[in-house]
Amino acid sequence: MTQPFAFTLTKTNGTARRGHFDTPHGRVETPAFMPVGTQGTVKAVAPEEVAESGAQILLGNTYHLMLRPGAERVAALGGLHKFMNWPGPILTDSGGFQVMSLSQLRKLDENAVTFRSHLDGTMYELTPERSIEIQLLLGADIVMQLDECLRLPASHADLEKAVQLSLRWAARCKRAFEKAPPGHALFGIVQGGDDKALRVQSAQALVDIGFHGYAVGGLAVGEPQDVMLAMIETVAPVLPAERPRYLMGVGTPDDLLEAVARGIDMFDCVMPTRNGRHGMAFTRFGPVNVGNARHVADPRPLDEQSNHPATHTYSRAYLHHLHKANEIFGAMLLSSINLAYYQSLMAGMRASIEAGRFDDFRRTTKENWARGDIAAL
Amino acid sequence: MTQPFAFTLTKTNGTARRGHFDTPHGRVETPAFMPVGTQGTVKAVAPEEVAESGAQILLGNTYHLMLRPGAERVAALGGLHKFMNWPGPILTDSGGFQVMSLSQLRKLDENAVTFRSHLDGTMYELTPERSIEIQLLLGADIVMQLDECLRLPASHADLEKAVQLSLRWAARCKRAFEKAPPGHALFGIVQGGDDKALRVQSAQALVDIGFHGYAVGGLAVGEPQDVMLAMIETVAPVLPAERPRYLMGVGTPDDLLEAVARGIDMFDCVMPTRNGRHGMAFTRFGPVNVGNARHVADPRPLDEQSNHPATHTYSRAYLHHLHKANEIFGAMLLSSINLAYYQSLMAGMRASIEAGRFDDFRRTTKENWARGDIAAL
Repeated sequence: MTQPFAFTLTKTNGTARRGHFDTPHGRVETPAFMPVGTQGTVKAVAPEEVAESGAQILLGNTYHLMLRPGAERVAALGGLHKFMNWPGPILTDSGGFQVMSLSQLRKLDENAVTFRSHLDGTMYELTPERSIEIQLLLGADIVMQLDECLRLPASHADLEKAVQLSLRWAARCKRAFEKAPPGHALFGIVQGGDDKALRVQSAQALVDIGFHGYAVGGLAVGEPQDVMLAMIETVAPVLPAERPRYLMGVGTPDDLLEAVARGIDMFDCVMPTRNGRHGMAFTRFGPVNVGNARHVADPRPLDEQSNHPATHTYSRAYLHHLHKANEIFGAMLLSSINLAYYQSLMAGMRASIEAGRFDDFRRTTKENWARGDIAAL
Repeated sequence: MTQPFAFTLTKTNGTARRGHFDTPHGRVETPAFMPVGTQGTVKAVAPEEVAESGAQILLGNTYHLMLRPGAERVAALGGLHKFMNWPGPILTDSGGFQVMSLSQLRKLDENAVTFRSHLDGTMYELTPERSIEIQLLLGADIVMQLDECLRLPASHADLEKAVQLSLRWAARCKRAFEKAPPGHALFGIVQGGDDKALRVQSAQALVDIGFHGYAVGGLAVGEPQDVMLAMIETVAPVLPAERPRYLMGVGTPDDLLEAVARGIDMFDCVMPTRNGRHGMAFTRFGPVNVGNARHVADPRPLDEQSNHPATHTYSRAYLHHLHKANEIFGAMLLSSINLAYYQSLMAGMRASIEAGRFDDFRRTTKENWARGDIAAL
């Protein structure tokens, strides 16, 4: 018998939170980072290796998957877990964010967002109900409401309109979610841009509707980090302590550290894989651009104390060579190294919260980043 | 104490041969297929996975590595084995073939081939002596002579000139190879295009000079398969039985089967990885183009009896999707699947020669290919 989705807060340390939640596909320890499997694959990393990195949950993109191969097709093939060979939990976004960033001829009204596919020009209509239907066809363990997400800066009037529409869509999503199998979860999304009053209003209204978890959306869309952190500080006290809090599309390792410090439990971001494909390795001593000329003859590994074998097996010179030669194996190695770094950062945060030493961990982690990479010394 | 390079012929079955040779980096069972690690990586496949496929020896490309990162740099970094994390044997080509196919402004005279790098326009001069020096700097277990390789069709006069020059360069390569560490091997390359008399002349002259092994070069450059096989049949009887025979740059699974039947011991080809990146899977029932529309909704795996996990884990629909979405993971899976198929084909040939049943193996293998893929039935 599948239990209802439940988040258990096991420990707090200041405002940082340690917990876990159970889904039909397994448990997730929080704070958690979710690698992004945009089109049914975490780019350039086999699912076995994603799991080895320590990731317990992936994010799938509704926008990409609804266009290709299509939600009904994925369902007919046994769902997204089976399709992409990821037996663990999956969270899907609602499609709204990529409609904004990728589609053409986007038109929004009370009922739906209508857009033209960036792949072949086909017109699609995405209603809150259809977004939930797609996510359930994919088989997502955690389903996100459809919302309207604006780029910042945006006017107060536009932000307020987006908050109100997103709240009406949140209520429609909740009704549509009633057909979900037991154990699955629906998260609402707090909007409001960089406006504190709107953020509070959005969060309170979502809590009144009632969701299994609450996301903070519409951040990391162009605003400075301090604005993002101020919005988290504004929203967190409004949200119920017994529900997970998910900061969408964030971020840098420093963003993760600061957001966990402010009570965030979940993250997703393409940064580890995207930056990996572009030659950046995340390490304990800050980011390393392997394409930089200083690595061209450097026999040293990236970081011999890291837990990822590739960080001690391969020289910087080799990683530099793969990047310059545009070899797929370079993207494979750096994407995998970065996923492992992100997971080790999350594991470090979880352990330090448990031990009541999160502030120490945050300080020493930042000191290491500030020390800088050995190749630059 | 490293032993001199030696090939041991353990069994023949008709003209098919079963044997092994030992190098400073380990033993290679023959007939052997060598995956190609063009630029210090077998494209889109981690070295651990190349080894898991059953490959015991890789080919590295002198032309690519001399241009980037440079032979002296690879040597300073500990050699190609360490650079690319491949602890097993490596054979390097001489650079001559890629000078012909990739470089600009190629100019050939008695002393050297002079060419402009396709990467940055730098002029390089490659003499037989420099080719050997580069290959020894890379640390190759098997070093190839520099030769002149022509595209077919070519005139008799051009073929003869190329044979004669290649023979003079063979002698220079042998002298230059004297400084090689013990256990390393130097192979001569039979040229002569599609001219039987020239092929015999080239082979006899090379045997007179004396090499650890003999390659048949200048094939699979545009001629029909029957011409290639006729050249092998012409050359094989001239070559000493106690030396390995390597058919360069070949080929399709059928080419391998037919060439082994005619006494070839070694192969290299980019086909399994290149075709994999372009959406072709080699299977027991012939090639499968996963991009073909017939796979779009097909839940069946590629081949549930194959020894590669990905051929039963993933549906054809998923492989189709990855290919259409241009996902790196598609290239990773198909390259790995194809390397494993090639190695299983070689293993099947080795076992059947040992059992004295090579003709049966050849017939049933071809019957399976002719049966065709299930998706086409």
